[in-house]
Amino acid sequence: MTTTEATGKYDVIGTRPIRHDGLDKVTGRARYGADVVQSDLLHAKILRSPHAHARILSIDTQKAEALPGVKAIVTSADLPIIKDQMIDFGETLGNIRLLAENALAHEKVFYKGHAIAAIAATDAHIAEAALDLIEVTYETLTPVLNASDAMQENAPLLHEKMTTRSVAERFARGDDTGQKSNVSSHLQFKNGDLDAGFGKATHIVEREFTTSTVHQGYIEPHTATVYWGTDEHIRVWTSTQGPFGVRTQTAAMLGVPESRVTVYPMEIGGGFGAKINAYLAPLCAILSRKSGHPVKAVMTRSEVFEATGPTSATLMKAKIGCDESGIITAAELWLAYEAGAYPGSPVGAGATTALAPYKIENFLIDGFDVVVNKPKVAAYRAPGSPQAAYAVESTIDELAEKAGLDPIDFRLKNAAEEGDRLPTGVPLPLVGCRDVEEALKNHPHYSAPIEGPNRGRGVAMGFWFNGGNQSSVTMNVNSDGTITLVSGSVDIGGTRAAVAMQAAETLGIAAEDVQPSVGDTDTIGWTGPTGGSRVAFSTGIAAINAAEEIKKEMIKRAAILLETEADNVVEEKGTFSKKDDSSVSLTFQEIAKAQLKTGGPISASAASNPTKVGPAYAGNIVDVEVDPETGKVDILRYTVIQDVGTAAHPSYVEGQLQGGTVQGIGWALNEEYVWSGEGKMANSSFLDYRMPTAFDLPMIDTELIEIPNPGHPYGLRGVGEVPLVPPLAAIANAVYDAIGVRQQHLPISPQNVLESLGTIPAEE
Amino acid sequence: MTTTEATGKYDVIGTRPIRHDGLDKVTGRARYGADVVQSDLLHAKILRSPHAHARILSIDTQKAEALPGVKAIVTSADLPIIKDQMIDFGETLGNIRLLAENALAHEKVFYKGHAIAAIAATDAHIAEAALDLIEVTYETLTPVLNASDAMQENAPLLHEKMTTRSVAERFARGDDTGQKSNVSSHLQFKNGDLDAGFGKATHIVEREFTTSTVHQGYIEPHTATVYWGTDEHIRVWTSTQGPFGVRTQTAAMLGVPESRVTVYPMEIGGGFGAKINAYLAPLCAILSRKSGHPVKAVMTRSEVFEATGPTSATLMKAKIGCDESGIITAAELWLAYEAGAYPGSPVGAGATTALAPYKIENFLIDGFDVVVNKPKVAAYRAPGSPQAAYAVESTIDELAEKAGLDPIDFRLKNAAEEGDRLPTGVPLPLVGCRDVEEALKNHPHYSAPIEGPNRGRGVAMGFWFNGGNQSSVTMNVNSDGTITLVSGSVDIGGTRAAVAMQAAETLGIAAEDVQPSVGDTDTIGWTGPTGGSRVAFSTGIAAINAAEEIKKEMIKRAAILLETEADNVVEEKGTFSKKDDSSVSLTFQEIAKAQLKTGGPISASAASNPTKVGPAYAGNIVDVEVDPETGKVDILRYTVIQDVGTAAHPSYVEGQLQGGTVQGIGWALNEEYVWSGEGKMANSSFLDYRMPTAFDLPMIDTELIEIPNPGHPYGLRGVGEVPLVPPLAAIANAVYDAIGVRQQHLPISPQNVLESLGTIPAEE
Repeated sequence: MTTTEATGKYDVIGTRPIRHDGLDKVTGRARYGADVVQSDLLHAKILRSPHAHARILSIDTQKAEALPGVKAIVTSADLPIIKDQMIDFGETLGNIRLLAENALAHEKVFYKGHAIAAIAATDAHIAEAALDLIEVTYETLTPVLNASDAMQENAPLLHEKMTTRSVAERFARGDDTGQKSNVSSHLQFKNGDLDAGFGKATHIVEREFTTSTVHQGYIEPHTATVYWGTDEHIRVWTSTQGPFGVRTQTAAMLGVPESRVTVYPMEIGGGFGAKINAYLAPLCAILSRKSGHPVKAVMTRSEVFEATGPTSATLMKAKIGCDESGIITAAELWLAYEAGAYPGSPVGAGATTALAPYKIENFLIDGFDVVVNKPKVAAYRAPGSPQAAYAVESTIDELAEKAGLDPIDFRLKNAAEEGDRLPTGVPLPLVGCRDVEEALKNHPHYSAPIEGPNRGRGVAMGFWFNGGNQSSVTMNVNSDGTITLVSGSVDIGGTRAAVAMQAAETLGIAAEDVQPSVGDTDTIGWTGPTGGSRVAFSTGIAAINAAEEIKKEMIKRAAILLETEADNVVEEKGTFSKKDDSSVSLTFQEIAKAQLKTGGPISASAASNPTKVGPAYAGNIVDVEVDPETGKVDILRYTVIQDVGTAAHPSYVEGQLQGGTVQGIGWALNEEYVWSGEGKMANSSFLDYRMPTAFDLPMIDTELIEIPNPGHPYGLRGVGEVPLVPPLAAIANAVYDAIGVRQQHLPISPQNVLESLGTIPAEE
Repeated sequence: MTTTEATGKYDVIGTRPIRHDGLDKVTGRARYGADVVQSDLLHAKILRSPHAHARILSIDTQKAEALPGVKAIVTSADLPIIKDQMIDFGETLGNIRLLAENALAHEKVFYKGHAIAAIAATDAHIAEAALDLIEVTYETLTPVLNASDAMQENAPLLHEKMTTRSVAERFARGDDTGQKSNVSSHLQFKNGDLDAGFGKATHIVEREFTTSTVHQGYIEPHTATVYWGTDEHIRVWTSTQGPFGVRTQTAAMLGVPESRVTVYPMEIGGGFGAKINAYLAPLCAILSRKSGHPVKAVMTRSEVFEATGPTSATLMKAKIGCDESGIITAAELWLAYEAGAYPGSPVGAGATTALAPYKIENFLIDGFDVVVNKPKVAAYRAPGSPQAAYAVESTIDELAEKAGLDPIDFRLKNAAEEGDRLPTGVPLPLVGCRDVEEALKNHPHYSAPIEGPNRGRGVAMGFWFNGGNQSSVTMNVNSDGTITLVSGSVDIGGTRAAVAMQAAETLGIAAEDVQPSVGDTDTIGWTGPTGGSRVAFSTGIAAINAAEEIKKEMIKRAAILLETEADNVVEEKGTFSKKDDSSVSLTFQEIAKAQLKTGGPISASAASNPTKVGPAYAGNIVDVEVDPETGKVDILRYTVIQDVGTAAHPSYVEGQLQGGTVQGIGWALNEEYVWSGEGKMANSSFLDYRMPTAFDLPMIDTELIEIPNPGHPYGLRGVGEVPLVPPLAAIANAVYDAIGVRQQHLPISPQNVLESLGTIPAEE
């Protein structure tokens, strides 16, 4: 579709105007973090641990300090939060003390690449040279490199004081078990009678799966420039998904009120969840304070791989049974997610989402958050869900086969619907699970013949909650009848356009008549990060709310101009007329032009506080061909079908489906951190960390199912994350279909394919 | 006074917190227009007329275009407004077609320095070299170099089609006289019976005065950087008092909707009224469009003098009579103000303000707006008022002497008060004219003896309306209980602080808890320029309005937290308590911290639309010493007393009084454009254009009279402009007191003093 005309019930929503930031981005004019230049700028480089697990016995920075050009050095001893606050493993996600230790190691290093010190110098080369002059003595410790090892009874402990929290049933917070462990928490959801359920089953499939550490692979490395003024105000220019979060984290780590920090979000070259936490800003802040200069740090690609947050490698077991007719009678899931160096994997989300496409009465889900000597994981697009969906959807595929059912028919028999409860007990609102499955079934791709040997087709489903959170929007009316719209949402994937369109729809003006921009933390009200597929949805609601306020004021102005009372003015699609005389009317533009003489400039600020988000389902059909000699898997054809709610800007929605799918293809087939025995990443460059390129991919076909979300005025759902959920299993199922061997280890790399075929012996 | 404690009836208003922008400005971190750097930036230089009056016969840019490094050239033929719109002399101020011709000469050049073409090149030196390659052929014309010559019947006409508009009595628009003239308009105010009034007079003084062209003399030259994107959006970074005005003007000159232009106001290094019009932005815009690059222009000091807007040189006659007791019976004023090359001098303001300190029943005021071959004048701090006040206050001084009265007693006998009408018919609200005069009389300075020969003392009064206009403010509540405040008002003289303080006062929080910033035209609602002494007043009201909205929302949130109804919550000084149980209360900070869980982020946008501005009176006492050999005048002591309304931030108010007075001293004693016979400025540098330095000045003592302005919630008046009104006459009167000769020509330079003494012959 290339139409820019409205086709549905809305005038603007559903059309395809050109995104406002597109031109600047394709012409290189958009300003990213690396483009920040300031007078007297210093450049920072970071000393990182060569060991995956070691105790820091001493750090001597004297020689480095003496190097001409070196202006300041920071170690964790300089971070107020590390000096002033004890670590509390009871809090994990959002625990700023843990974030601080991850940003600058304290007493121990927990992974190769863990930051130990940062140096600011007059140029980057001097800073880099000075790194070698810092003398660190370590007591090296045995690294713990995967969840399985970490959960062994006698495994070396990363955090000697950490105990397991037991979090049972529907997230009710349980007690600390008191047991020292690398397992920071064990959560459990259960329902019904598992044994009875399996007792009723005619067919049962039980399998074990592993997935590797994978990185989001955004193009733009992390960067921050910070100036700590002598007025004690700290300014941060950075690439982030959430300027307000960076403000909060930076302020907390530095022990200052958050209003002393201003964060200027630059354009972002990808984040996918991993640019929410502040790695560099606190370090640069202290270097700036010590030196009196602004300080800039830009990570190398290796640093991005080794010292930011990939997503969890996992060890998972799934056991699912169904009766004669193909109705699922019981499911058991056992999920161990690697959190990396500090607690906080997305195992909870994996545990909550994996069975969400199904009605299942009897289930038991165990989830384990396990620390290992690898970089602390960060969010990655539907965090935790792709892994668990891989386990469940592979198992379902096998179960359907055993039951003699088409895999989509099997799913349709068990499809979740409105009112069914997630493991957390939250009931599903109106959702499109069945609609997506029916669309998969009816898609020409599904009935197209598969010709040739070693070719196969797979399907899988995926679920994601989507996030709500709060956003702020300010809108101002220009005298030419256009609008400027400021939001606090960093634009990823065209959200400027999607938000502006909702304002335009509400006001009855053209999409092009709304000029969106992204504010800094001093300019706009608090806004949650761009993540959780929430911006088009929640920032959209804030824009609608602000537009409604604008409209209310325009009605007052119309009343002045029409010489009547405000309650005698009615607005429809940007035209304001008298209720009692519809022949007399004014356009939005006419009222805008008269604003200064009817009471002054018109502006409005509003926030969103959505209570009902719109969960989303996606389904995939994929055809593959496996080369049995090399083990290489080629994607022949790919179809993504997703319940996107109302598609605000269909092109950008389609783009999200395509982008998420491509990341899933990479995860399924090629991407993995290759670890040495000592816990060193052996492939920390884009040459060696194999992401799919255009040469590896067919066109990703999309079909949008638009089940309106009742929690949004125009029915939007989040769309960005769920497309990453089904591909792992869909591709594994297709490979099975092609070569007849189940793929229980990701990536389905040539080596793993050949191992699964027995062509080469399995690696240790 | 150095206290930062509140002393009056307010908690924040009247204290002296440190200005938010101070540190960045004194440490060189603040970003001004000249600091703008962009990738692929081109530098523009402007070809300017060597003639004061000439017809442009041809412009050949071919050789310049061929110079390597030259990327684009613009002439007036490229300006859409000049192509598309006829000139209309009926509109003067705000006539964008005239602004456009002033920015790029069309058919004729009207002053030496008038821009003819601009060149963008890869560096400024190439651009400058290329200027010499543009071949312009002129037909030189006789220049008209002062109002007197211009008004002669047979004077050469600048604009052959221009006729005089007759604007009589109280600004009612009169008819076009149809008479071709260099006088663009003749306005007249009259009241009572002039002849009868003079008939009743015992004493009459009639004098003629001249003043010279003077420049505002801001430190920072004009600058603009413009990028015209291929998306047709035009971005302007510039030093301006009014980003929204620059947006409007630039858009109009370029023939695009104003929403296609975004203006980013940089910090401003002084403006005083002359940085409201766009000189460079439209040129750079077209150069950018032609070249595809961003284009930056920075004027040299000579360009600032020769091609921006100084204020009017004048020829003025004053005749005032009083009866035996010293009561003024009649006044006649004849004012001819040079507008420069295009119509639009501030003669109307001079005519309206000069008699405002007096109750006068019978008067006739004639004002003439006269075009001459000099740069088009721009606003300069209380535009037009200092000149006319110089004429009136000198004449009053002489009349008081004739009547045998102390000059302050004479003024007190005739002091204007609430209800008296300005010549326009507008009645004065509550004003402090008499209060200021009484304070002058009672000030120790006035009774201090004057010792030594050639020393004298002068007094004078001044009046200024002050401006209102509209402003927008957006405020956001941080979780730590602080506020970010965005306004559209470029900060001149500490207005960030003054506006923030009014927000803080309204919310019951500390001044330091409000963090103000200045928005660009995409970020904040429409806001009039920083000028007319309006920002602390009108943007202050917008801040108060936004704060009231915030407070209303905070009350709702407090109700949730206190588990009561909103109308059972009462707020006082930032504490929110239950009406029915005052023991239960919450602080502003506590509610702010809970905002996300009580409904979401709290923000508000509001505008001001003041209808009642607060006019201001200032009075001066000055002691001088004249060196009879050299004619040099030294200022020995200076006291400024002004009705400032409530002083929001007394230090910055005092700073305005001091700064305005110093500019008045320069205007009175030294500053003037020295013109060659051909209309070339002979002293277009700060070495030759003699502004006062610290060595020339005593401490300027200030006394603030705080008569609250009933048109503002906290009683603020504008304070920035009126201090420039009295010094010209006060100093002239002091020089008379010292040497016994009236000074009817400004500046009272050594040469003019010696001429007035007859020591040297008067110049032609």
